Formats: sequence, C-alpha cells, structure tokens
Amino acid sequence: DVTVSGDGRMGIVYAEDGYANALTGKTKDWSYNSRIRIKFAASGETDGGLAFGGSVRADHYDDDQGTKGTAGDVFISGGFGKLSMGDVDGGAEKAIGDLAEIGYTCLACLNETTYLFGGNDPSALYEYAYEGLILALGVSDDEEYSVGVGYDGGMWSVGLGYENVPEGSTISLIDNDETGLTADVLSDEDLEQVFVGGSVTFSDITLKGVYGVVDADDWEIEQYGISAEGTWGATTVAAYWRALDTSDIMFDGDGDGFADEEFGKIEIYGIGAEYDLGGGASVAGGIASVDDNTIGDIGLKFSF
Amino acid sequence: DVTVSGDGRMGIVYAEDGYANALTGKTKDWSYNSRIRIKFAASGETDGGLAFGGSVRADHYDDDQGTKGTAGDVFISGGFGKLSMGDVDGGAEKAIGDLAEIGYTCLACLNETTYLFGGNDPSALYEYAYEGLILALGVSDDEEYSVGVGYDGGMWSVGLGYENVPEGSTISLIDNDETGLTADVLSDEDLEQVFVGGSVTFSDITLKGVYGVVDADDWEIEQYGISAEGTWGATTVAAYWRALDTSDIMFDGDGDGFADEEFGKIEIYGIGAEYDLGGGASVAGGIASVDDNTIGDIGLKFSF
Amino acid sequence: DVTVSGDGRMGIVYAEDGYANALTGKTKDWSYNSRIRIKFAASGETDGGLAFGGSVRADHYDDDQGTKGTAGDVFISGGFGKLSMGDVDGGAEKAIGDLAEIGYTCLACLNETTYLFGGNDPSALYEYAYEGLILALGVSDDEEYSVGVGYDGGMWSVGLGYENVPEGSTISLIDNDETGLTADVLSDEDLEQVFVGGSVTFSDITLKGVYGVVDADDWEIEQYGISAEGTWGATTVAAYWRALDTSDIMFDGDGDGFADEEFGKIEIYGIGAEYDLGGGASVAGGIASVDDNTIGDIGLKFSF
Repeated sequence: DVTVSGDGRMGIVYAEDGYANALTGKTKDWSYNSRIRIKFAASGETDGGLAFGGSVRADHYDDDQGTKGTAGDVFISGGFGKLSMGDVDGGAEKAIGDLAEIGYTCLACLNETTYLFGGNDPSALYEYAYEGLILALGVSDDEEYSVGVGYDGGMWSVGLGYENVPEGSTISLIDNDETGLTADVLSDEDLEQVFVGGSVTFSDITLKGVYGVVDADDWEIEQYGISAEGTWGATTVAAYWRALDTSDIMFDGDGDGFADEEFGKIEIYGIGAEYDLGGGASVAGGIASVDDNTIGDIGLKFSF
Repeated sequence: DVTVSGDGRMGIVYAEDGYANALTGKTKDWSYNSRIRIKFAASGETDGGLAFGGSVRADHYDDDQGTKGTAGDVFISGGFGKLSMGDVDGGAEKAIGDLAEIGYTCLACLNETTYLFGGNDPSALYEYAYEGLILALGVSDDEEYSVGVGYDGGMWSVGLGYENVPEGSTISLIDNDETGLTADVLSDEDLEQVFVGGSVTFSDITLKGVYGVVDADDWEIEQYGISAEGTWGATTVAAYWRALDTSDIMFDGDGDGFADEEFGKIEIYGIGAEYDLGGGASVAGGIASVDDNTIGDIGLKFSF
Repeated sequence: DVTVSGDGRMGIVYAEDGYANALTGKTKDWSYNSRIRIKFAASGETDGGLAFGGSVRADHYDDDQGTKGTAGDVFISGGFGKLSMGDVDGGAEKAIGDLAEIGYTCLACLNETTYLFGGNDPSALYEYAYEGLILALGVSDDEEYSVGVGYDGGMWSVGLGYENVPEGSTISLIDNDETGLTADVLSDEDLEQVFVGGSVTFSDITLKGVYGVVDADDWEIEQYGISAEGTWGATTVAAYWRALDTSDIMFDGDGDGFADEEFGKIEIYGIGAEYDLGGGASVAGGIASVDDNTIGDIGLKFSF
C-alpha cells in the first residue's frame, strides 16, 4: 500500500541582502517564501511477518533520485532489526541526531550538526533496538562507515558515534546561501569523527548537548553545541548555540581557487517559537545569528 | 489529507510546418499529441475552524518548482478571506479572467489575455468574497502588484483590474511555438495596465468581453476581445476573437538582437466544440487563426 | 479515479570494474543498489460504457515526459478494441514480447529483444483481442509502423510481427553501462524487421523462442534466442540465451567517430532465481554473460 500525505508552508524570510530581485537583480532583505511537498509512504508485510516499505517525496524525482537510490529509502524489518537502503543516515547520526530546530523554515537548518557519512548514496543502514538501546551501522560503497550506539532512558538519553570516510570526501561544514557563508573541506586523506551527545528532560524542557571532533593527520575540527526546547500548551520555544572550531585550516571562501582564508571559530545561535493551531497547522518564526549575520523567518506551517 | 486526481488527453494537432520529425528533422503539419497529469489537492482545518490546503501536480517537480514556490500553491482561509502563496494569479486576473477556451489542447491557450503580474513567484494573493462581490490583491517580491474587483450578478458579471510592474519586467504578449510567433516586450520602465471585463448569459449562451491597455511613458499596447460559449445538452460550442494592437512598438521577431519588426495589430480568433461522453471524458476539437496562421486540434479529453 | 501503488528494491549488483567510486573515482566490481518508484493508475468509464484511463510514474516527470507524451500512456477501449497513446509498444512487441526476465534488477534487462519501433513518442497503438487472437498496430509521427498478430492457445502461443522505420532511425542493439558495450546503428535508409516468436508450456515450465531479421539494402542483423522459466511453489527459476549477429556491419565501439570495429555475433545468456516471500516481497538474484563479460545481482524486490 502507498499512503499519500504532504506538507506546506507560507511566510516571509529575512537575510540582509540575502535575496535577489528576479527582474531587476537588486538585492533585498525580505522575500516571500512558500512551498508544497507531496510524500509517499509505502508498506507491506511478507507471509513470514517481516515488515517492508519505503518513503519518498514527489520532489525526489526532479533528477530521478528516487530511482537512482540517492533520495528516499526502502527497508525490511523484523526480529533481526531493520535494514534500510537509499538516502539513509549513518549510525552516528541515528544515535545522536541534531540540536533542536527553530523557525518557520528551520532557518537554513543550521541546527543540524555535521556528519561525515552520506557522500555516496544509495547507502545501507542497519539498526537494532532493544528496550531503550539502539545500535546503528551505516556503510556505503565508498568505504564510508558510521556506527552509533544510544540509550534512551525516558527522561534522559545518551549517544556515541564514530565515522570514517575515505580520502576524496568533501565535508560540508556550512553552506548557507542567505549569508553567503560556505565552508567546505575536501580531504586528501581519510577522515574520522568521534561524536557524543546527550539530552535530559525536566519541567517540560529538553536540554541537548553534542560534541564531535573531525580528525585528520595534521588538523582537526571541533564542533559542539547545546539546545533547549520547551512546550507549554500549544506553544513551543526552542533555542540553540553551536560552534565549529576550524582554526587549524584555511578555506577558499571567496572561490578564487586558493585556500587563503581563516574562518576560525564559526558561531551559530538562534531562538524560535511555534504555536500549534491544531489540525496540522502552526504558526512559527525564528531568528538566528550565523557568524555574526542575522537571518529570520515567520509564517504558517502545514501538515496534510 | 491529500487527494489524488488527474487528467489526460489523446489526439492530433495541426499547424502548417509546425512540428519537426524527431528522426529526419523534416517538418510536418500534423502531430500525435497525448499527455497524462497527476494532481494533488491537500486540505486541513485548524481547531479554530480555519481551512488550509494547497494544490500541486506531479509535473510541478521536474525542476522542483513546487518546493521553490514557483508552481502549485498553499492557502489559508476563514472569515477574513483567503490568503494564497506560490504560483498564484494577480488580482486583475482573478476578477476578469480569460475568454472562453476552445479545442482539444486549448489551441496554445491563446484565449488567455495578457496580464503583467506573475514574473516572480512565489507571489501572494489575498481574496475576499462577499455575496457576489470579490476583491483580490496580488503582490510579489519584485514590487509587482495587481488589484481587482468583480461582481457576479448571476446572469451577468463585471470586473475591473489594475496592475503595476517594475522596470525590467518581460511581458509575453504571445509566445506560440506552432506558428513561430513570439512577441515579448522587455520594459526599461515601470508598466501599468488597466483592464476591464464583463459577461452576460442568456438563452444558454455566455458572451464575454475584455479590454485592457498596457501603458508606458512613450507607448501603449491595447488588447481587447470577445467570446461566446453555449451549451446544449452534451454539446458545448465556443468561439473567440481578440486583438493585440502593438502599433506603437517594434519587436525582435527574427531574434537577430534588433527590434526592427512591426507586428501592428495581431489578431487571433477561433472556434471549437466539445461533446461530453460522461464519466469525465469528452471529445473536443477546434480551429484558430493566429496572425493569419491556422492551427487546429481534435481528440479525447479525460478527467480522472 | 487515480490509484497509487509502487515498487522498490534493495540489494547489490556486480560487474567487473562496472561502478565508479563517487569520491575517489576508483572503479569497483560491486555496488549497493536501491530504488523506490511510485505508480499512478487512472481509470474512468463513459456513460456509453467505454473504459478510459492511463498510467504513469512519479519519475516520469523528471523531464516532464508524462506531459509531453514521451512516458506513461492514456487509452480508451470498448468493443472496437483499445487505442492507446504515449510511450506505447509497437504491434510486433505486443504480439511477441521478450524472453524471460532474470535477476534482482533484471540484469540490465538484456532479455529484452530489439524492436525498431518507438523512436518518436507519443506514438499510437491499436489493439484488438478476440478469444485467443490479438492484432496490434503501432504508428508514430515519423512514419514508423509496427504490426503484430498473435494467438494464445493456453499451453502454447505464437506471434508474428513486421516493423518499418524511416531513414534516420537509431537502432539500439545493446547499450549496457556495466560492461561498456554499446552497439547502435544509425541508419541512412529505411529499415524493416520481420519477427516471429512462440512459446509452449508443459510441466510448469514455459519455453519461449524468438527470431528476427533487421533488413537494410546492403546488410542485415539477425537476432534470435530462447528462454525457459519454471515455477515450483514459491520458487521461480529462469534462464535465457540470445544472440545478435551483426557480422555485416561495423560499429564505432570506442566512440572515436569511426565505425571501425566488428562486434560479429554478440552472445548474451543468463540464469536467475526468485523466491516469493508473500505480500509483494521476493528475494531474487541472477548472473549473466554479456559478450563474455559477467554481470550479476542479488537483493529484495518489493511491490506496494
């Protein structure tokens, strides 16, 4: 069976000189923003009781990614755990995840921490859950692997992950159109990352912290951050602060072909609020600082 | 919830030397023509009784337009009216619309009148309806706006619209592949258009007339036309005549980079008939004259 | 009405040096492979009892093929037979078809025999079935036509087809990425093909044979093959052998612009097995030899 659902949003977004006027080319600070997406969830069950299925969106076919296995996923699961293939997360990401999301658009989703795994889909992910414990292992054709272990104790959780990707991998630390901040690392050696995270919930508030180190022979990049999210009735408020310490390396920030710029410690933080209107609709907004540039948004979010 | 529907058609189309043979490159006058499209209609309701939703087609993701907000739309509506965002019409188009459509394919949809608004989606459209009265205002990031007011008196209707678009806008008066007629105006100044329309229905026949003037400092383009549409049992017959008076300006019709051609008054007229087979199927055909070139079509139309 | 279904698969594929590492560019013999596809089936009925409908997939819009009529199809059917338009087969293909499919991915679908028709969609296909007899005629804008007649006697079937395509047609005999084998013929004259096929079923085993000759003034290409497929309980085993005798012509196999290579008789054969897990899932695998190169695959297939 295939179930059809979707999401939509309509609102406005802000970034200083972040948007170009389509007709005159003049930059502007505010822009209208809307989208609608259609989602397909497929499911079935074998005679032996194994569940199988998959998920994909209509927009995952603009370059036929769903057919190539570079977007969407398929899975089979049973007593042995769950095996997925396609555009799947690595084990570290499954065990630790991201900081709390804020805003109407997710504000460029800069709450998402950097994982090395995932440069060559279709990848494969194996997950095993037993009571609060989860084990997850992601592997790809390019000899990438990412393993994670997590424990969810109800009011608290912890996760630990390790990733290893081969020479030639491009690690996208930040790629933010609105502020023009791009920080990519093309590695000429194998890279690994050790990543830990944990959360604790009390008085309707969840605090989450993450810490990771991307390690090469001559340099390392540290990333760390915390987020807080609380829900009171229909209102959810969330904030995060995170940093990427890139002091060891230089970037080609201006695209002239020379890695001659220091970004040092990149700091990102933001706060947002969402009010649930019921029936799948909410109004949400947020504001964030990205390496001292401000971005913001406000609008309606729909789930169909 | 998301509802899936669709449409399809199969038939033949005619234009003198209008179609190229894929293998040999020879031009031909007739071509097979078919298509199938899948439509998604999304809907929901907030706890407070506001309706929200959206619409998009599967083909609106070939360049991910639905996600970019340049195709499809989302909306929220209630006692305050209806606010839509995405690939929405301007207010003038909402209040006045187009002349009657003819043919199996709509014959290049040349029944559609020229509106200035809509060069920079996602745009926003606000509509308010009270008994027969409608008010509509469209705005876009590029400082385009389009306002319309209309009244539907049952057997008659009237509409008035005003549009204003900034310097740099390209106004597509006609862009017709089959006859090779392209008339675009790239404006180096702000343009405005005043547009009026009205219709009257008697003896199963609806007559509609439209008149608009696109106004610049040194020139203007007049457009005007009428259509008639009548339904008798399963049979609908429709015809239109319209003209674009471009005498004030020159065009780069042959694409040599110089605006050295006069198109003068471009006349388009056509007639078509459709027979309803029931269940969502009909057989339809039409013939039109586009600046003295003849195009035609005939085939089956399906609604699923 | 529009019904949504889909299919998916997850597994691994093999070809010597057949896959490039996305990051390092190194070739490899094995690759992960997965996909998910979403299918739409549209249907309706006129008041007079004619059935109409169409079919298309979400991935048929990555270049808007469904709207252009180059993928998917629409049809109307009744006592007169069935008329389809879009990406339809020719009459010969309808009457004869392909050898048995093997493997998890169909192993590049090299079981499919070469038909000349279909270079210029939307094409039109007319089919008429009376008891076991079928007549089929495909025509396209490019003066291609393909006619077939078949008879299904229950335990046996026969089919006969004739195709004719104009000068300028490219006939793709083989285009196999995994093994790098490409054999295209761009014809500077009209081509025709006479094609016969037949099958017989006994003891749960179906044997099928096909024979066709592509004929030009100065050369001809013979293709012929047989397949066997048997099902015992949940297990299906299939195998095929086929050959393309291209001794009369030279190819530009290395893409240097000169047709200076002989491919002679290209032989392809393979064997595969599939085990039905029930509920729409199966595990399948196969191995094939393509002009002395080995390809293989194994994985899970899902139908949603």
